[in-house]
Amino acid sequence: MLKSLNVGELTPKDEIHARINNLKARMEEQGIALAIILQNVDLFYFTGSLQKGVLAVSADRDPVFFVEKSLARAEEETPLEITPIKKDKDIKDILSDLGALRGRCGMELDVLPVLVFERWKSILGYDNIVDVWPLIRDLRIIKSSFEIRQVKRSGEIISRVFEKAKEIVREGMREVDIAAVLESEGRMHGHQGFLRMRGLNQEMMNIYITHGLSGTIVSGADVPISGAGVTHAIPQGPSVNRAQRGIPLLIDYGAGYNGYITDETRAYAVGELKDIYLKGHAVAREIIEETMDFAKEGIDGTEVFMRALHKAKHEGLEEYFMGYGEGKVGFIGHGLGLEINELPVITPRHKIILQEGMIFAFEPKFIFPGEGSVGIEVDFIVRKNGLERVTDSSIDIVYV
Amino acid sequence: MLKSLNVGELTPKDEIHARINNLKARMEEQGIALAIILQNVDLFYFTGSLQKGVLAVSADRDPVFFVEKSLARAEEETPLEITPIKKDKDIKDILSDLGALRGRCGMELDVLPVLVFERWKSILGYDNIVDVWPLIRDLRIIKSSFEIRQVKRSGEIISRVFEKAKEIVREGMREVDIAAVLESEGRMHGHQGFLRMRGLNQEMMNIYITHGLSGTIVSGADVPISGAGVTHAIPQGPSVNRAQRGIPLLIDYGAGYNGYITDETRAYAVGELKDIYLKGHAVAREIIEETMDFAKEGIDGTEVFMRALHKAKHEGLEEYFMGYGEGKVGFIGHGLGLEINELPVITPRHKIILQEGMIFAFEPKFIFPGEGSVGIEVDFIVRKNGLERVTDSSIDIVYV
Repeated sequence: MLKSLNVGELTPKDEIHARINNLKARMEEQGIALAIILQNVDLFYFTGSLQKGVLAVSADRDPVFFVEKSLARAEEETPLEITPIKKDKDIKDILSDLGALRGRCGMELDVLPVLVFERWKSILGYDNIVDVWPLIRDLRIIKSSFEIRQVKRSGEIISRVFEKAKEIVREGMREVDIAAVLESEGRMHGHQGFLRMRGLNQEMMNIYITHGLSGTIVSGADVPISGAGVTHAIPQGPSVNRAQRGIPLLIDYGAGYNGYITDETRAYAVGELKDIYLKGHAVAREIIEETMDFAKEGIDGTEVFMRALHKAKHEGLEEYFMGYGEGKVGFIGHGLGLEINELPVITPRHKIILQEGMIFAFEPKFIFPGEGSVGIEVDFIVRKNGLERVTDSSIDIVYV
Repeated sequence: MLKSLNVGELTPKDEIHARINNLKARMEEQGIALAIILQNVDLFYFTGSLQKGVLAVSADRDPVFFVEKSLARAEEETPLEITPIKKDKDIKDILSDLGALRGRCGMELDVLPVLVFERWKSILGYDNIVDVWPLIRDLRIIKSSFEIRQVKRSGEIISRVFEKAKEIVREGMREVDIAAVLESEGRMHGHQGFLRMRGLNQEMMNIYITHGLSGTIVSGADVPISGAGVTHAIPQGPSVNRAQRGIPLLIDYGAGYNGYITDETRAYAVGELKDIYLKGHAVAREIIEETMDFAKEGIDGTEVFMRALHKAKHEGLEEYFMGYGEGKVGFIGHGLGLEINELPVITPRHKIILQEGMIFAFEPKFIFPGEGSVGIEVDFIVRKNGLERVTDSSIDIVYV
């Protein structure tokens, strides 16, 4: 029924079973007997369906996928057997009859609200429940070939949007009007509608367009360039600022296809740019090229960050690197997948050894206070022998 | 600085102080000495700023607004005095010095993730923290004249989008392409970018376009018509389904202006509609008209629902009213404000007495399984003597 309405392949059966088996192995290692998965993205990852339901994974038995609604839709989407329920309380008796309610229980404590958690503790009869998110997060960090296919398809949407931008960006246009046209373009080419970011108060747009002053505004968000937004009620994203000659206009676009997010940035310009912007862009490009020359499986992410920082220092741009003043952020890359804030984070703060199948956005950017910003963002797939670009879209400044 | 980049008025100083004083009065009644507010929308409601910060409200002293970043931006936005902090741990000493860390403490337990909550309990040194969300929720239910002005401006975006739809909806277009054009139109006319929905796993689009089969697909979401989406990874919203003659195309659009959400639905048609759709639309219209005839301050929301249900029954449409089978929902209206799932909910399940200044979306809809859906959604402001429509956009079927 849904085949005629949706695009995008379902998650293959083997892949769903492999993911669950990997989780079971990690639960075994950590002494967790039962994981109750409620968050929609994790549920989608392990079942292939994002319907209203609950997945119970026991370390030593078959998973039970409880679905409240839509049953019809979940049945089309998941390779798992479905246990229909009318309400979440029904789960207790079923798990109890299976003998699954013993040993340590884990839930996603990083996202479960206190009241939801207390309710589940009481439904299941546990006094204490541990956090199972670190296990899930570490599983999700390595992308399968199926996932990489979705990511590449997502990247194609980015390439189309950047091509369209070349046609439409003109002097005098408001950032928000450029954004409106480009979002529309992305949607027509398969964008899923919105992107997901995990955690309390984590919000994001599909597209950030910044230019001059708006590219230097600091926001509460942990990103180097957030934009001013059109209202203080959503203080991020494109603003009503108009494109002027000689100042780079940055387009930071996030595509989403079949759940999978990609996120790249390009610089557009009307007329010649001042030297400081040309230099910033050139250094960003060199950082990307040098990173592609040495990073690969086995390299530590902290080294990737430190080399980029070193390059920025060497070029006299350290002060502006990845933000200025209170707006400076402590990373140059972030993992991509079903959520935009996955691992690996490329930061000096946490060691992370790159492994084949990790995917991250890499975004050397320079913010010149009172002036504007410049930079590039590309997405990388970590391979044994190097980094593979997700898109083949040019990283040159686009003069329009 | 931001004046040149943003549209939309800041929340007036008097209003911020009135909101905080109302919260303090309710805290006093409930025996809560200190409320720590972390969720971004609540923070915006009480401070006028959505920067990264924490608001500490004591029942018997001045509030303390801690801001981590952006300080510059928060200073432009809030009438409150700001206490800058480097990290959230700094709050403990400041509140302790003020003597504010005594008595019962409340936090937003409906949205605070367990790990965040545990961290705050430990920072503040409380063993037990109660839920302060019911107090905030009940305050937010009554909209001020400032808020109503924002809501009406939000409604103007809806009217423009519905006008644009008249120009562009044509036979053979995909739902998602119509959505792309209309979202773009709304954005150019002041839409803030996205809408907010409170709670775990609560996600929404700005626009839902459904037509025939896609209007009958049930999703995990608690809405009468969710659409199929373009992917099972986001199983809601417009799909790749194409508009055909004789079947209504429903456009359910949510505008957001300066934080405030409006949400209306209209039916479009290419060619004549079958009788069942004409009847469904006519009954939806009569339900709206009858509701406007009797509902006002003092009326119970359960009565509003029951009268609508009675009308549907009387017309032989009960089976299709507000969903069919597993897709049937238990409400016909939902509150609007900074989030789309505010109070009042118009449902037979919970008594709620309408009061001047409440705002809700009212959506009599009929879902005919295997066929399609029809219905209307309008937004109402509750007044002493009746209901006021937020927009003056026609509710007739639009033949294109």
